[in-house]
Amino acid sequence: MFSAQDFDFMRRALALAERGMFITTPNPRVGCVLVRGSEIIGEGFTQPAGQDHAEIQALKDARARGNEVRGAVAYVSLEPCSHFGRTPPCANALIEAGVARVIAAMEDPNPQVAGRGFAMLRQAGIDVRCGLLETEAHELNIGFVSRMARGLPWVRLKVAASLDGKTALHNGVSQWITGPAARTDGHWWRARACALLTGIGTVREDDPQLTVRDIATPRQPLRVLVDSALDVPPGARILAGGNVLVVHAHGDPARAEHLRALGIDLLDMPNAHGKVDLPALLRALAQRGINELHVEAGFKLNGSLLREHCVDELLVYLAPCLLGDARGMFNLPAIDTLTQGVALEFHDTRKFGPDLRLMARIVRPDTAPSARS
Amino acid sequence: MFSAQDFDFMRRALALAERGMFITTPNPRVGCVLVRGSEIIGEGFTQPAGQDHAEIQALKDARARGNEVRGAVAYVSLEPCSHFGRTPPCANALIEAGVARVIAAMEDPNPQVAGRGFAMLRQAGIDVRCGLLETEAHELNIGFVSRMARGLPWVRLKVAASLDGKTALHNGVSQWITGPAARTDGHWWRARACALLTGIGTVREDDPQLTVRDIATPRQPLRVLVDSALDVPPGARILAGGNVLVVHAHGDPARAEHLRALGIDLLDMPNAHGKVDLPALLRALAQRGINELHVEAGFKLNGSLLREHCVDELLVYLAPCLLGDARGMFNLPAIDTLTQGVALEFHDTRKFGPDLRLMARIVRPDTAPSARS
Repeated sequence: MFSAQDFDFMRRALALAERGMFITTPNPRVGCVLVRGSEIIGEGFTQPAGQDHAEIQALKDARARGNEVRGAVAYVSLEPCSHFGRTPPCANALIEAGVARVIAAMEDPNPQVAGRGFAMLRQAGIDVRCGLLETEAHELNIGFVSRMARGLPWVRLKVAASLDGKTALHNGVSQWITGPAARTDGHWWRARACALLTGIGTVREDDPQLTVRDIATPRQPLRVLVDSALDVPPGARILAGGNVLVVHAHGDPARAEHLRALGIDLLDMPNAHGKVDLPALLRALAQRGINELHVEAGFKLNGSLLREHCVDELLVYLAPCLLGDARGMFNLPAIDTLTQGVALEFHDTRKFGPDLRLMARIVRPDTAPSARS
Repeated sequence: MFSAQDFDFMRRALALAERGMFITTPNPRVGCVLVRGSEIIGEGFTQPAGQDHAEIQALKDARARGNEVRGAVAYVSLEPCSHFGRTPPCANALIEAGVARVIAAMEDPNPQVAGRGFAMLRQAGIDVRCGLLETEAHELNIGFVSRMARGLPWVRLKVAASLDGKTALHNGVSQWITGPAARTDGHWWRARACALLTGIGTVREDDPQLTVRDIATPRQPLRVLVDSALDVPPGARILAGGNVLVVHAHGDPARAEHLRALGIDLLDMPNAHGKVDLPALLRALAQRGINELHVEAGFKLNGSLLREHCVDELLVYLAPCLLGDARGMFNLPAIDTLTQGVALEFHDTRKFGPDLRLMARIVRPDTAPSARS
């Protein structure tokens, strides 16, 4: 079906796409390689929103190198777009450039537009094939796929714990259970996320900045604070520097006004229990273009997110120690049978310095994305 | 120092040694390869106690194949023994056979005899080298090394838990958190142990047989039950079939008598708190020739063993689930700073079916074995 050369060029397209890891939001990370014979004549990857998509970059690159694109094969990690957004459709550009064949890793995940880009290309007489390294392409844009297919961000919950599952001592001490290599990796996951979410408990205990610092990135993710009663102190570090959304549940209007005066964005999303409606919050974040949501919260908010089926993936750093009688990972209720627990699938294990990183996905039979891996 | 061929033959010797994994106790697992030029002319591994050691098996094998051993090189995974035990010294046999060179992975770990086998060989004019694949050889006999060097077994504590570190629900349900592949692997570790240890709590809750069943083995390990007050019901499955040692702390004499009448071996080892003196128990087990002690106990005994510094290694099976408010792995006290926790080193991670197996070693600056890996 696909040749060894096809695999090589698609791997290259995926590697290019990864270069856009921190910058393309809310757009997907896409890479494009233009090939004539067995030679790459142009390549590119999607730039920050409003700028070139991968295909346009690759066409420009080919022209800058003086290469003729007519008759070439385009490898793209995602179906070329077919609509005018902030940029004109890439399918048009490929047609105008005269490429002979398009090989794509996957369809556009938006069910309303999926296949239209391919249809445009085929109508123009271009040979189109899809499905090469699809799993890899899907993983790379798991958040974009989630937002398009479910109207929800892909929610990745990070937790650092001892091997016996403890995240903080009785006195609140939790810094630093894991070492520098794990923390840097944690910042890599922050950097690729569109938004970072935490709760008022964590702000009170650790007063985090919730910014990307250990990894170089041109973009800081939106910071989202779940704070039902608007208890956040105006001097909290998370509020500094803007780019913050505080989500509350009919919090005190005077406090709301005060925060608004500081330039803080507020969202009032109460549920029936006077807490923040977490599923509604996820939908609202998706509407704001959030593909990947990275959660670093405490025992309570972690538990609420899990109980309300708001988590897709756990990013667990296990430190090589036992902490004994201390706070656990998630505030979850007691159950009577093992099958009532939260079902997961281990997805990846890696060592970072002395620590282990385990990635596990929530098994939700009702949703496609978590079943894809 | 050592040639690529040397490495190959020592790897072969170690592979042979592994064939004795379940049978050599209390002796170490040893393999021997006799080589002339680049050809293996004989090989063997240590048999059950009282039968041939590896060197003798290899010499017999060479003779049975009609090969001349004079002038050959012997690769042995442990220094040949120099003393008359249940069998005559292997060093003598190698000298008499006229081998020209002996390459060993490691010295005899018994400080009282280490180097004597080598000295005998050298006195006989044999070229002796040591240290090839020493780490691997040490791992293979980590229990024997521990008993020889410390007068203690190597204690491996097995625990099966959910990713959030829970081992049983509030109602005691714990079977089966992990799947069949992890359970079979657990039986492999049972099979290689010289003894299996559990506590009265586990007997009451799960009534385990504590035998090797999922793995074929010609030898069942000694079963050790820690039961301070001799509360074990005479019908408990662990008592069936003999080969059991019940350790108590001045337990009721009538109960002791009753158990003795059933043919059960008893050991009275109280500490100052009226519980079993666990460190003393370990020393007693070492004196009985126990190299590797495999622990499958509950929250309480696990915690006591850890608190009393009786554990060398954790064998943790993590199931892909979260169990929430349930029983943890180890009954350990609350601490005030992270450095007061039990320090570990991750040693190995592997997937068994849907579950993960993590191996971690206790970091004890005062003992050599845990620092060796």
